[in-house]
Amino acid sequence: MTILLTMTGIDAGPWQQQLEALNLNQEFLIWPSDEPLDSVKYALAWNSPHGVLARCPNLEVVFSLGAGVDHLISDPDLPDVPIVRIVDPNLTMRMTEYVVFHVLLHHRRFHDYDRAQRAKKWEVLYQPGANEVRVGVMGMGTLGSDSACKLRDLGFQVAGWSNSPKSFAGIESFAGMDQLTPFLNRTDILVVLLPHTPETEGILNKNLFAALARDGAGQGPVLINAGRGRLQIDDDIVTALDENVLHAVSLDVFEQEPLPVDSALWSHERATLTPHIASESDNRALTKYIAEQIKRHESGQALENVIDNTKGY
Amino acid sequence: MTILLTMTGIDAGPWQQQLEALNLNQEFLIWPSDEPLDSVKYALAWNSPHGVLARCPNLEVVFSLGAGVDHLISDPDLPDVPIVRIVDPNLTMRMTEYVVFHVLLHHRRFHDYDRAQRAKKWEVLYQPGANEVRVGVMGMGTLGSDSACKLRDLGFQVAGWSNSPKSFAGIESFAGMDQLTPFLNRTDILVVLLPHTPETEGILNKNLFAALARDGAGQGPVLINAGRGRLQIDDDIVTALDENVLHAVSLDVFEQEPLPVDSALWSHERATLTPHIASESDNRALTKYIAEQIKRHESGQALENVIDNTKGY
Repeated sequence: MTILLTMTGIDAGPWQQQLEALNLNQEFLIWPSDEPLDSVKYALAWNSPHGVLARCPNLEVVFSLGAGVDHLISDPDLPDVPIVRIVDPNLTMRMTEYVVFHVLLHHRRFHDYDRAQRAKKWEVLYQPGANEVRVGVMGMGTLGSDSACKLRDLGFQVAGWSNSPKSFAGIESFAGMDQLTPFLNRTDILVVLLPHTPETEGILNKNLFAALARDGAGQGPVLINAGRGRLQIDDDIVTALDENVLHAVSLDVFEQEPLPVDSALWSHERATLTPHIASESDNRALTKYIAEQIKRHESGQALENVIDNTKGY
Repeated sequence: MTILLTMTGIDAGPWQQQLEALNLNQEFLIWPSDEPLDSVKYALAWNSPHGVLARCPNLEVVFSLGAGVDHLISDPDLPDVPIVRIVDPNLTMRMTEYVVFHVLLHHRRFHDYDRAQRAKKWEVLYQPGANEVRVGVMGMGTLGSDSACKLRDLGFQVAGWSNSPKSFAGIESFAGMDQLTPFLNRTDILVVLLPHTPETEGILNKNLFAALARDGAGQGPVLINAGRGRLQIDDDIVTALDENVLHAVSLDVFEQEPLPVDSALWSHERATLTPHIASESDNRALTKYIAEQIKRHESGQALENVIDNTKGY
């Protein structure tokens, strides 16, 4: 039996090496390949070229390398087999690091202090306490809810927005499109960890930004997107920053990645960019997780974290 | 009865206004003043000129505006009355914001990503997960232990060092000078929240820096000092940065404050400076705390958080 590695933009070699070290008794095939695909039972996919998976007649499970599965769902020839999403504590921990860091970066006025330091100026700036600042987390799945709880523990006033109501102690819950505006109206710092679906595409646009709270104790609305680039309209973000509809942003994802060199975001003084590394996958932790799922499947146990194809996450 | 406000470097006016609003039925006196000091029962002090408190024959309690009391202990004529230290949740929350932010700043390689952004370069840099990084907190009082717990919750391997052993779930405890070297040997990111005492003065020197772990998963040892400036030797920090004995530092305090404009720290690319604002006192929260203690004292209850003069904290 064979594991197919079909990925674009990342190197399959290290994944194969890590998996081989776990003694799964499987052969490996790296796409593109001229070998027949009949023996492929498992596929590890990241931005796999459309149609490749459909050419594996004996495929039983697809593993998506990363938290999102939009790169698979968009394949019109996607075979009807279970898609297993990576839910790994390491992935959650790293995302929470990113979110907590970027909320504090804006909250603690890092850019203003950095400017003062470069000018060798000893200048005390006002900042409210975390308890005076309202953070809103869009997307309260495994990643979003962990970030929300850690921010709550630091003293922030936290609310979550998701498709269905979620219950976490000390976190206000908003659900559905009806409650989106009230959620935005009470939010000073917006953290976005939504999946990319037809409903969420382009949701981070000028109308949404205009609904954020403008009476907060801080400097003005802040947007932090570590979800998916297709959630946002890059041009609307630039305009909102220029017009101070958004005070500042941290973006880990972009409509087009890598971000084109002519994007105005690169040099905007209140935009903090990272190259889609908010929760950089750690191969060792992820291959261990995949190996565990393959062993479960081989021994007749149910797979975990299988996505719901009708919802897209 | 009178409350004396004796402070240097900060404006007493807002403190008086805040306290007046709390209806304590007390008169106020702001030092310097020609009024007699016989009626002074309480003093609020911050860098009070030496000898002033000794001139109040009926003084019963001194409140120190801030977590440290070194500014009082250094007064050779300090009268023998209880000194109440501010222990305020707001102060703790703000210090924890600072500590968590600066640990994550270095952990997430912010400065490297910032440089890449300015060069418009899409560049993924390796960083370990929090679970691979060992943070050490020197000073495990109210502030240090809260920071340590929040960092532990984010996944870091946390240890604390203090005078006597402290027990916090999941946090390794080191105590006393005997265990300082083993504590430093296992520490990648050192957070310092010690009080300033004769024993701790200048403790952050080249010998201590050389004992930090050099086999960590990150870029090299990091120092974060948000305690007191007199704990550190500024020149030793500059040398350690230049020689890569320290990879990077975040400093909120300095031997001399404001930091002189000719200090090499201002423009060191791996030094992140703030003007003693890690836990900027919020007058409203602090005056509420002081009023509560005055009411306790007036009604015959014991004062809280009275410092031990023999220890100096």
